[in-house]
Amino acid sequence: MDLLSGLRSILPDDRISTGGEEIERHSGAIFTYHASRPPDAVVYPESREEVAEVLRFANERGVPVVPFGEGSSLEAHTIPIRGGISVDLGRMDGILEVRPEDFVARVQPGVTHGGLNAALAEHGLFFPVDPGWDASIGGMAGTNASGTNAVRYGAMRDQVLGLEVVLADGTVMRTGGMVMKSSAGYHLTGLFVGSEGTLGVFTEIVLRLYPVPEHILAARAVFPDIEAAGRAAGAVIQTGMQVGRVELVDARTVGAVNVLKGTDYAIAPTLFLEFSGSEAGVGHDVEAARAIAEAHGCERFEFEADEAAREKLWEARHEAGLAIRDLNPDKKPMTTDVCVPLSDLPGALRHARETIEAAGFDGAILGHVGDGNYHAVFPVDPDDATELERAEAVNGEIVDHALACGGTCTGEHGIGSGKIGSLEKEHGDSLPFMRGIKRLADPNGIMNPGKIFEE
Amino acid sequence: MDLLSGLRSILPDDRISTGGEEIERHSGAIFTYHASRPPDAVVYPESREEVAEVLRFANERGVPVVPFGEGSSLEAHTIPIRGGISVDLGRMDGILEVRPEDFVARVQPGVTHGGLNAALAEHGLFFPVDPGWDASIGGMAGTNASGTNAVRYGAMRDQVLGLEVVLADGTVMRTGGMVMKSSAGYHLTGLFVGSEGTLGVFTEIVLRLYPVPEHILAARAVFPDIEAAGRAAGAVIQTGMQVGRVELVDARTVGAVNVLKGTDYAIAPTLFLEFSGSEAGVGHDVEAARAIAEAHGCERFEFEADEAAREKLWEARHEAGLAIRDLNPDKKPMTTDVCVPLSDLPGALRHARETIEAAGFDGAILGHVGDGNYHAVFPVDPDDATELERAEAVNGEIVDHALACGGTCTGEHGIGSGKIGSLEKEHGDSLPFMRGIKRLADPNGIMNPGKIFEE
Repeated sequence: MDLLSGLRSILPDDRISTGGEEIERHSGAIFTYHASRPPDAVVYPESREEVAEVLRFANERGVPVVPFGEGSSLEAHTIPIRGGISVDLGRMDGILEVRPEDFVARVQPGVTHGGLNAALAEHGLFFPVDPGWDASIGGMAGTNASGTNAVRYGAMRDQVLGLEVVLADGTVMRTGGMVMKSSAGYHLTGLFVGSEGTLGVFTEIVLRLYPVPEHILAARAVFPDIEAAGRAAGAVIQTGMQVGRVELVDARTVGAVNVLKGTDYAIAPTLFLEFSGSEAGVGHDVEAARAIAEAHGCERFEFEADEAAREKLWEARHEAGLAIRDLNPDKKPMTTDVCVPLSDLPGALRHARETIEAAGFDGAILGHVGDGNYHAVFPVDPDDATELERAEAVNGEIVDHALACGGTCTGEHGIGSGKIGSLEKEHGDSLPFMRGIKRLADPNGIMNPGKIFEE
Repeated sequence: MDLLSGLRSILPDDRISTGGEEIERHSGAIFTYHASRPPDAVVYPESREEVAEVLRFANERGVPVVPFGEGSSLEAHTIPIRGGISVDLGRMDGILEVRPEDFVARVQPGVTHGGLNAALAEHGLFFPVDPGWDASIGGMAGTNASGTNAVRYGAMRDQVLGLEVVLADGTVMRTGGMVMKSSAGYHLTGLFVGSEGTLGVFTEIVLRLYPVPEHILAARAVFPDIEAAGRAAGAVIQTGMQVGRVELVDARTVGAVNVLKGTDYAIAPTLFLEFSGSEAGVGHDVEAARAIAEAHGCERFEFEADEAAREKLWEARHEAGLAIRDLNPDKKPMTTDVCVPLSDLPGALRHARETIEAAGFDGAILGHVGDGNYHAVFPVDPDDATELERAEAVNGEIVDHALACGGTCTGEHGIGSGKIGSLEKEHGDSLPFMRGIKRLADPNGIMNPGKIFEE
């Protein structure tokens, strides 16, 4: 039985694509410089049973399987670099259960964080993890995504309380549960979150939810240089105040955002800040943060007056990557993603700026500096081998600097196929154990091959 | 080569015990009803290399190895139920590095949370995880311990950023790092935390630290019954306020504590509360919590006036288990440890009280109700087989009730040898995967055999 006949024995014809736009859409990532590669087929399962049947079929034949959500990964996770089947989970986008009093929702992998939050608003609850793109919850769990709220609420791994996973051989397994904590056996939930589709396909995800804070205030603090902004961010965190968000954007990023969003933010290194809690608590925190910012050279500290201005601010921040990409429509963005210990952040920001400049790139720097996680984004021409090599060298230098500080090569984007060498540098001594787990879940190596590890 | 000769080839004689008080101390847990069993030898390594040599030796001969910290586990983790070597990590109690600006400490496994916090005070930092006993950090990481601060700061798994682990064959492996978040490969740190000594021995642990809050206020809220106290706790959490601690103690527990600590707290179901943050924020939160408590029938809401009274309150809470044990010095405490979804808590508390009473036990109920995690503690005579069986039936009924609500059989104490059957009920479908990981780390099954799984 060939691939197509096999898939037709599992799914109706209209949920299998083998050509045209759908193959194109599943061939390459939206935001990344990585080379695209078409899958042999795209399938659209609607249930765990269908996912299990597709995997069982693929596993028996050694056909690669790549889980696909929104395709917004920055490290080529959804590119089927060995061909095979792209399993598009977009039709499994149900919100199966919301338990407002338990702060828990059970969802299918295809729902996006925006879709989930729209459904939660009526309960006065929200889900905090907010990568820039409106990514799927399944994909976000796959890469342990985070975003601007992580400094307060944590990353995906902190929110996923339980999973339903289909392993390569079609076995369905549940991990975790509906409760806030557990010490019952090995923490498989945390192991599968961040496994980048290499261990199985998520078919249900139990998420932790949070009450919308009583009072929220946003502000922009403008600095003479990014190192000063980084030092101020560190000092705010040092106080122990429960800052909601603390995002750094450099002048280049603000300029790009002003073009895309029509804002008129001062074109200078800036911290975008958010404070939340009771009105009394927020009032105290924002004044403390302003004093710290000014002590670190802040030139202007401006509040976003109302909810619309605040939403605009965060929309601008979320679309910063898009804004930078749009400045160079003929190129693709290379995005670094290191995370360093907080005290190393100002030095790492300086090093990144100098490295990018020395290589002659037009780079922007931005990031979740309350976590020590920042991104350098610089457009490259993926068809220009020399330029691509130079860009990869810059990325490599930024990673090496982070590792030398005790940092990590990826704070939130994952390894994919772009950082396999960096992972070897960072975790060479535990890679054999990771590979052992890979073999346990996927002995035939069908799950997203060529990601995380060299084959 | 026999066991003793082998160990003597690795360690000096004065760091090997094969009889006397030290064998006795490593035979049974301090607080538990579980039957004790002597190890064949106790060893006291002082370095990772010595740990690795002991494990390599034991692995070649198939000799069981049980990691030992303070012996305060409630589920028999440190009891060498198959004999073998008790590896006492008490001499590896160094605080290797404190990085105040990075909120990170690197420690050896034998340091206790009290010892660590004493060293952190000069930096204005603290480590929040606080099981009742002054347990070792290694043991706490082994069971994914938590305590009263978990509602705000999370459990051990949320604090451990990295590990150095010696696997059964003596391989030394590092996981994680020094940073607040990472998406670099499989999350082995989270997998090893909570593995109860069945996958390897921790020789270094990187921990997340927190600034001591600017302002702290503690209070006691007295209720007519525990269900009302449970409902009030849930309602406080619902507001989204960042409560520091919310602990429930029933009348029986308060009575026991008054005897042990010389306090004169009202003998009634009570919430012990703590609020922290800025003075303005705390003032707002405490008034909101008081209003909620009163709406749920709170009869008295009393503040702890000063730091000494506040410390006394938490000391009393931490020693509640001890206090209950001391009421029945001839018996041993059976301690349940389920965690349920927040909305199921009042019903679960009622069910536990009725179940214990129906079985004729003199039980106390207390717990970390902000997480949905509570304990029933009832003294049993471990030499009375009928009584022990009856006690185990009560524990089993409480677990079954929690599982029926979507809860877990253990919120923080772990599986050990006491809850193997409960784990099978809760995670039967993922147990084969857990066993696969066990075989990967420990193919000869020497690491703490008879814990988590049936052999």
